[in-house]
Amino acid sequence: MTQQTRADGRTPDQLRPVRITRGWLDSAEGSVLVEFGGTRVLCAASFTSGVPRWRKGSGEGWVTAEYAMLPRATNSRSDRESVRGKIGGRTHEISRLIGRSLRAVIDVAALGENTIVLDCDVLQADGGTRTAAITGAYVALADAVAWGQAQGHVKPGTVLRDSVAAVSVGIVDGVPLLDLPYVEDVRAETDMNVVVTGSGEFVEVQGTAEGVPFRRDELNGLLDLALAGTAELTSLQAEALAAPAAGFRA
Amino acid sequence: MTQQTRADGRTPDQLRPVRITRGWLDSAEGSVLVEFGGTRVLCAASFTSGVPRWRKGSGEGWVTAEYAMLPRATNSRSDRESVRGKIGGRTHEISRLIGRSLRAVIDVAALGENTIVLDCDVLQADGGTRTAAITGAYVALADAVAWGQAQGHVKPGTVLRDSVAAVSVGIVDGVPLLDLPYVEDVRAETDMNVVVTGSGEFVEVQGTAEGVPFRRDELNGLLDLALAGTAELTSLQAEALAAPAAGFRA
Amino acid sequence: MTQQTRADGRTPDQLRPVRITRGWLDSAEGSVLVEFGGTRVLCAASFTSGVPRWRKGSGEGWVTAEYAMLPRATNSRSDRESVRGKIGGRTHEISRLIGRSLRAVIDVAALGENTIVLDCDVLQADGGTRTAAITGAYVALADAVAWGQAQGHVKPGTVLRDSVAAVSVGIVDGVPLLDLPYVEDVRAETDMNVVVTGSGEFVEVQGTAEGVPFRRDELNGLLDLALAGTAELTSLQAEALAAPAAGFRA
Amino acid sequence: MTQQTRADGRTPDQLRPVRITRGWLDSAEGSVLVEFGGTRVLCAASFTSGVPRWRKGSGEGWVTAEYAMLPRATNSRSDRESVRGKIGGRTHEISRLIGRSLRAVIDVAALGENTIVLDCDVLQADGGTRTAAITGAYVALADAVAWGQAQGHVKPGTVLRDSVAAVSVGIVDGVPLLDLPYVEDVRAETDMNVVVTGSGEFVEVQGTAEGVPFRRDELNGLLDLALAGTAELTSLQAEALAAPAAGFRA
Amino acid sequence: MTQQTRADGRTPDQLRPVRITRGWLDSAEGSVLVEFGGTRVLCAASFTSGVPRWRKGSGEGWVTAEYAMLPRATNSRSDRESVRGKIGGRTHEISRLIGRSLRAVIDVAALGENTIVLDCDVLQADGGTRTAAITGAYVALADAVAWGQAQGHVKPGTVLRDSVAAVSVGIVDGVPLLDLPYVEDVRAETDMNVVVTGSGEFVEVQGTAEGVPFRRDELNGLLDLALAGTAELTSLQAEALAAPAAGFRA
Amino acid sequence: MTQQTRADGRTPDQLRPVRITRGWLDSAEGSVLVEFGGTRVLCAASFTSGVPRWRKGSGEGWVTAEYAMLPRATNSRSDRESVRGKIGGRTHEISRLIGRSLRAVIDVAALGENTIVLDCDVLQADGGTRTAAITGAYVALADAVAWGQAQGHVKPGTVLRDSVAAVSVGIVDGVPLLDLPYVEDVRAETDMNVVVTGSGEFVEVQGTAEGVPFRRDELNGLLDLALAGTAELTSLQAEALAAPAAGFRA
Repeated sequence: MTQQTRADGRTPDQLRPVRITRGWLDSAEGSVLVEFGGTRVLCAASFTSGVPRWRKGSGEGWVTAEYAMLPRATNSRSDRESVRGKIGGRTHEISRLIGRSLRAVIDVAALGENTIVLDCDVLQADGGTRTAAITGAYVALADAVAWGQAQGHVKPGTVLRDSVAAVSVGIVDGVPLLDLPYVEDVRAETDMNVVVTGSGEFVEVQGTAEGVPFRRDELNGLLDLALAGTAELTSLQAEALAAPAAGFRA
Repeated sequence: MTQQTRADGRTPDQLRPVRITRGWLDSAEGSVLVEFGGTRVLCAASFTSGVPRWRKGSGEGWVTAEYAMLPRATNSRSDRESVRGKIGGRTHEISRLIGRSLRAVIDVAALGENTIVLDCDVLQADGGTRTAAITGAYVALADAVAWGQAQGHVKPGTVLRDSVAAVSVGIVDGVPLLDLPYVEDVRAETDMNVVVTGSGEFVEVQGTAEGVPFRRDELNGLLDLALAGTAELTSLQAEALAAPAAGFRA
Repeated sequence: MTQQTRADGRTPDQLRPVRITRGWLDSAEGSVLVEFGGTRVLCAASFTSGVPRWRKGSGEGWVTAEYAMLPRATNSRSDRESVRGKIGGRTHEISRLIGRSLRAVIDVAALGENTIVLDCDVLQADGGTRTAAITGAYVALADAVAWGQAQGHVKPGTVLRDSVAAVSVGIVDGVPLLDLPYVEDVRAETDMNVVVTGSGEFVEVQGTAEGVPFRRDELNGLLDLALAGTAELTSLQAEALAAPAAGFRA
Repeated sequence: MTQQTRADGRTPDQLRPVRITRGWLDSAEGSVLVEFGGTRVLCAASFTSGVPRWRKGSGEGWVTAEYAMLPRATNSRSDRESVRGKIGGRTHEISRLIGRSLRAVIDVAALGENTIVLDCDVLQADGGTRTAAITGAYVALADAVAWGQAQGHVKPGTVLRDSVAAVSVGIVDGVPLLDLPYVEDVRAETDMNVVVTGSGEFVEVQGTAEGVPFRRDELNGLLDLALAGTAELTSLQAEALAAPAAGFRA
Repeated sequence: MTQQTRADGRTPDQLRPVRITRGWLDSAEGSVLVEFGGTRVLCAASFTSGVPRWRKGSGEGWVTAEYAMLPRATNSRSDRESVRGKIGGRTHEISRLIGRSLRAVIDVAALGENTIVLDCDVLQADGGTRTAAITGAYVALADAVAWGQAQGHVKPGTVLRDSVAAVSVGIVDGVPLLDLPYVEDVRAETDMNVVVTGSGEFVEVQGTAEGVPFRRDELNGLLDLALAGTAELTSLQAEALAAPAAGFRA
Repeated sequence: MTQQTRADGRTPDQLRPVRITRGWLDSAEGSVLVEFGGTRVLCAASFTSGVPRWRKGSGEGWVTAEYAMLPRATNSRSDRESVRGKIGGRTHEISRLIGRSLRAVIDVAALGENTIVLDCDVLQADGGTRTAAITGAYVALADAVAWGQAQGHVKPGTVLRDSVAAVSVGIVDGVPLLDLPYVEDVRAETDMNVVVTGSGEFVEVQGTAEGVPFRRDELNGLLDLALAGTAELTSLQAEALAAPAAGFRA
């Protein structure tokens, strides 16, 4: 593979500029504006005491997520799902992915019978919205858990067993690339979203041949890129959580 | 009326800090983040050539609007309308109000057979979301019209006959107040939304007795406040349009 | 303003023939067929003991309304909202308006934990359907309250603090007119619906510039007309309630 | 069978008082308020040139029907189907039955490529709403066909090959009864709706054992009653069509 | 009537080959694949303890049914009702018919507070799907009742007062025919579905004139055919229930 | 890894008994009943000339899929999606996966402007329904393509560039297992669905940590199992297509 430069000047194994702004909303128990280049996702964590009926009395909490895009997040306007009266398959799929990813790192027994809902709304989409959403939602979740502990709703101790981050990788013109913006994404032969814990283990691996099927060595090359990328995102999450929340005017 | 101070330190006839940030999205033909204090509404204008079928061949354009709130825009989370599968009455009502307000100042014949859709999504709600939306949407509309003219889709000349802005007024503890935040709004006996053109004429007057009916002199007092407030908003709109678009990092 | 005659021979400040027929249905706790000229609305009040869950234990009752039009109430047939599977914005808006108007005059504590639902179904529409509905619904509500008291569900005493009536006003060819039928309504530059209590105070003022914005003196002229019109409707409501219910064969 | 008297004083083979009021709406091409005792159904026929897409170019017209009940047509209020967002099975079933019954007597070739929609809205329900609807809808249909011929949309000549009427019959306490009101209907062991042409042939026979199955001789007894009842309805339809339309104030 | 032969070689009064295969599913409390010629319906009975809320405390059970067709059950593919987001009138109508037919023979008091849902899914449709569904559903219901008794959820004793079966009859080219396949069904002038108990009494008689109305003697001829056909189906049901369940590999 | 035996007696790398029955429906252009042990999926391919509007004039065809489960396919009954009025996220997700998998091997240019819809309806579910559906749908697709060529709708030549099959793998008690039935699936720590072409390249890799995250070596072990399993399925598909269609009575 030649170390060619991409349209935005990055090397194949380079992330776009990533920003994680905590405290973007005034009243949510956790809120993050996460940016992967031009992709901007607002992740809001809502903490409520109690759990859905089917989980009552279990002593365990519940974490779920809903993903959506504003109609003009994309280059051309899309109809609202509320106006169409139904949620599309892609939206469902991504909401479920985010929820599973967060549940992989939370200790629901330690959370106790509390519910945290993560709303991930894409304000602007430039590829990688689901991976940005997972990466930002983890930080909002951490803030909501801390809020629950500060308020006494959750017992002190470790509730999040690990952090979790996600990145997209893909093969464009035969070259494996990290963190694809929209212009690369539409040209990718293979597209993969990888969700990885802070300790480097897989939570989800979703690879799709958009055009031609992919070989096992290509799969391996993509996983290498993804693991390096998520390790970097893990550091950025930790930094964001270590600093004071910047808030909306950041 | 005694010139008492409000919880946020304002006088009864004072607006909250208002910010109008143009160019908040990279690809929309017009986009504005409008803030009335803690209320933040993202207004995106989408320009498309052509009109809905029922208007084809008329030589006239069409302007419409859709209003929505993110689930955690408010203090406690609301269910998504897309998940519930239907749009609530309040959402419908406000979308229609925004659309009517903008159509009152646009010359649809001068626009030609083009459509502009205004998406007003409330990112954070602290009272007055519909009036902020109208005020911001007008600016996004002006940018979209200019874009259409720059691209040659719309003929040169005046398309917007006037500007339009809106503000809420209400009576709290017997005192008429301008631009109510949430804490005042829930306590208001009478609540009024007033939409006014740049030249000071009414487009909409919507007054509602929440608790006790209101007298004609009270109505007059509220209209005085509203006309002063919208005159100020008209100036802020003009300033925003005169300056270069600040963009997302403003 | 010259005292010109309208298409139906009325003067600008004259109501259409108004008829309020009580007891139009055999089993509803209150029912009124209200006619404003060719506009006919059937208002049925359904009394049930108990309140919605969110109000239980408050000691207070609840009054709500639903408005709808039969498909052939209008000149050309409209699709049923039940067939389309969703309720339109206009329907939502009017249902909410009727409910708010009635709640402005009812003492929910005196009503006790009982619910009254007002169904306002437009059998024939010739302009002013929402104002006719409010005017008729008040009478049906009064009958349902009386029924509740006669049955011992509601304690004796004053439950309705005042009556409420509504009328439309508008400017056609520069002339302010009272109680617009369809042919005038479609030509109105400004259209206003005004809801007024029996003692002459405002419950709702909803003015909309359909074509050109309106000046403050025009607003004042319209309010003058509306207050005179609702005073007359208040008398007609009182007369109807004083006489025995006429029933369907009236 | 003893010739016992029913709660409302009728003999087993007697219809309730039937009234067919033509011209109840001002603008519909045909409109009838039909009453079978306390059951009141408003039947509006809407004539439009042209046919649904799947029938274009066939040279044939189309007749269809929609049935619905106002929420307070019944003793206790039912939720609106528009609010629930879907149409119930019973509504679907009856709409289809009315449409099929009318199509059995209309010559669609003679109608030409025109569509007539029959809206049958139950204003008050006291048993037999579907049979009243069919009986009234036929008269409204006849008026709409005449309107189409008078306007020149339909060629002169016979479009309706026959008339059609319907009645309910049922077995209560072992006694076959004609035209059941609600109090009898809920107690019927067997319930049958029979649709018959003016010349006495069957269009629909729908018999249902509500409690215990019924024998063939019972079926025959019910059919005897139904044929006598529909013969009487046929006369009343003819009388109504022979007289001038009475209109709303009848 | 000449004793002519039909396209598939049957005489007018002959059923198609009927197969009733019990135990087609591994885990349902009752399951039957029923075939009427090329028509194949999978009937699954689901037994659950408890009843819907409105029936609680009555001591009585509940039986209901849902009918549906796979999209490619028919010659050309139909859209899924789940994708269209609503259930069609025909589906509603048949689901209700199956439920009523089964409830006519079950002793709900003997069933106790238990619910049995019959799912009748048409895998392949060649006419008579609703009659095949009723005939098969009865057998699945009998198995589910037996399961409930074997498990001790239902007391020993007679729960099914009788069996129930159904068949279609119709007049094609003036000839009354039993058990119509699709090719005959589309040509039938009159179409009738008849539901009959094991002891030969009627549960439902639904006759429809598709083209021309039918005379009373024709009705009688069709009922003769239907009673002979259902008697035969009653025997086949009894045989199926007497033999061991054949299971999926039958 | 010890070569332990599973509950159903299989070794970890052994498929369940697989049966592919072609021609299960009489009229579909391709139809397959595919069984993976107790999992039974009916795959029907519907061929229609023409393509959706957005693809017209492209010269290319379209292949899409819809997946659904009968309500009693599972151990306990699930509500119908048609009754709930909306399609769940899981259904959407699987429908999209099947469609993508088939499109990966079809040459849409060679198909020409024709559409093939694959309906995959789960008659009985015992784990692996989506992988069985893909494996069976490929065979039904091949039959529908052949039908299109035989009818002259599709030009002779290669339309399917390769075959495609799918299998599930997972880690249960630390042991990687092939083709999980329901009892293993619910206990799996990691669950992966792998879609592979006949030539052994990947179309989709979807791995999910249900409980604890998984390491890269575990991922590799699962991929080894999956490639062996899909190679075997590829042979079974080829065998099925080489033999004459067995039909429903197989």
